[in-house]
Amino acid sequence: MKMELWFTEKQTPSVGITCKVLRTLHREKTPFQDITVLDTEQFGRMLVLDGMVQTTIYDEFAYHEMLAHVPLNTHPHPCKVLIVGGGDGGTAREVLRHSRVERVTLVEIDRRVVEISRRFLPELACSFDHPKMEVFFEDGVEYVKKKEGVYDVILVDSPEPIGQAARLFSAEFYEAVFRALRPDGLFAAQTESPFFNRDLISSVYKKISRLFPIAKLYLAVVPTYPSGLWSFTIGSKKFDPESVDPKEIPSFPLRYYNSDVHFASFKLPDFVRELLCQEVKS
Amino acid sequence: MKMELWFTEKQTPSVGITCKVLRTLHREKTPFQDITVLDTEQFGRMLVLDGMVQTTIYDEFAYHEMLAHVPLNTHPHPCKVLIVGGGDGGTAREVLRHSRVERVTLVEIDRRVVEISRRFLPELACSFDHPKMEVFFEDGVEYVKKKEGVYDVILVDSPEPIGQAARLFSAEFYEAVFRALRPDGLFAAQTESPFFNRDLISSVYKKISRLFPIAKLYLAVVPTYPSGLWSFTIGSKKFDPESVDPKEIPSFPLRYYNSDVHFASFKLPDFVRELLCQEVKS
Repeated sequence: MKMELWFTEKQTPSVGITCKVLRTLHREKTPFQDITVLDTEQFGRMLVLDGMVQTTIYDEFAYHEMLAHVPLNTHPHPCKVLIVGGGDGGTAREVLRHSRVERVTLVEIDRRVVEISRRFLPELACSFDHPKMEVFFEDGVEYVKKKEGVYDVILVDSPEPIGQAARLFSAEFYEAVFRALRPDGLFAAQTESPFFNRDLISSVYKKISRLFPIAKLYLAVVPTYPSGLWSFTIGSKKFDPESVDPKEIPSFPLRYYNSDVHFASFKLPDFVRELLCQEVKS
Repeated sequence: MKMELWFTEKQTPSVGITCKVLRTLHREKTPFQDITVLDTEQFGRMLVLDGMVQTTIYDEFAYHEMLAHVPLNTHPHPCKVLIVGGGDGGTAREVLRHSRVERVTLVEIDRRVVEISRRFLPELACSFDHPKMEVFFEDGVEYVKKKEGVYDVILVDSPEPIGQAARLFSAEFYEAVFRALRPDGLFAAQTESPFFNRDLISSVYKKISRLFPIAKLYLAVVPTYPSGLWSFTIGSKKFDPESVDPKEIPSFPLRYYNSDVHFASFKLPDFVRELLCQEVKS
């Protein structure tokens, strides 16, 4: 009988996703984390950080398109864009589709994530040599704290709020993001699963809505992420993502995001709406 | 060390969901299938048919609300409703929220699914004694074939298209459904995952759009179902689910479905839209 190798991520202490591994392509321990690249039968190549699925060739389009295009199409002139995290390059790839973007700055704490992604995930890491791109390998929170009134759009493409990454979900960080944005700037962050991370979503939304005049949650589906349902939270100083003129939304050749999906992603099931109301009251 | 029991469903040959089991509440083999009821730590009680998660206390609301309320709020006077399958009772519970419904007929092939659900899933199976309900234990395809012009709405709440249940995804069955509906009737069926069951969705949509003047796909998220993203297909003789007057949609105390979600669920990501176009062309 042929040996089968399966990788299981415990997404919570009591539920996991398990998938058949064809080959372990890479494994190393950096000062920041354990980085593994697997080739899986269902999802193709998969980047795993500290045992948690970060992205896969199969479904990364859903996550990266939705993290990038909803905020970028909300801002009428997104010239300077900052990506915090996102070392796999998928978010930068989507941002660079927007011709009005003049400069993309990516700040990734772990240089090895970028290097390994360039080698094993070239479909995502295809933009690091783009003339509009600049990359800094340093702590995202500290980087943002040094900036004031610089960016039109900031995208927070972070791992789960565990260890160092927890700071990317703090009020202190969101205040720094607010200051780093121009007076009409906006930002979006991945904010985990409305099924499995209810308290986190409530707390993040509360923090963001205290700072930004416009705070909104939107949803997408990413099969390899816990529960499949994924949330993003936008904080905006001026532009409302639901007031965009659909005719102004460019039609790129994408696989998930389109003008209809832009608006539909803000229509929340009742149990998600409740996460936003409960905490704002308290 | 405490023993841990984990149940794993292989959702495809190369990916699975795995969850921690507190207790096996029931297990039996009927003439039709293996029926298991587990108590899981993450999802509460879970009904498993032939090793596949059928429903859980944790996320059944998403599936049952979306299968029932989208079609029922599309039909202006849904008096007679037929449910094919749905022996756990969750769909019937949602249908009975609509006061205009006068008669709900549920046809379930396996009497034991209803009996076991009444015992272990009373939150779902709460409507079997309702005066408007009638239940028949027989083959759903054969039952529908005997009917002509009877129902306003038919809901197909089937398991995966494996074995006997495959007939519930056949052109022959959809033709019988068309005949069993009144001249302004409509039906909705659960039609699996747009990520993992692309060919099935294309083929079902093709069959339904050949018969019904209006054929539309809509989406919901159900974490315990493969990929989390779930599709439903509507075939309608007259009423368009996207032309409903939002003011006519009653506001029940629900957890997933609401008037915004009704319309948003028809806004499809590009990779799902493609499933519908490709096959219609061929």
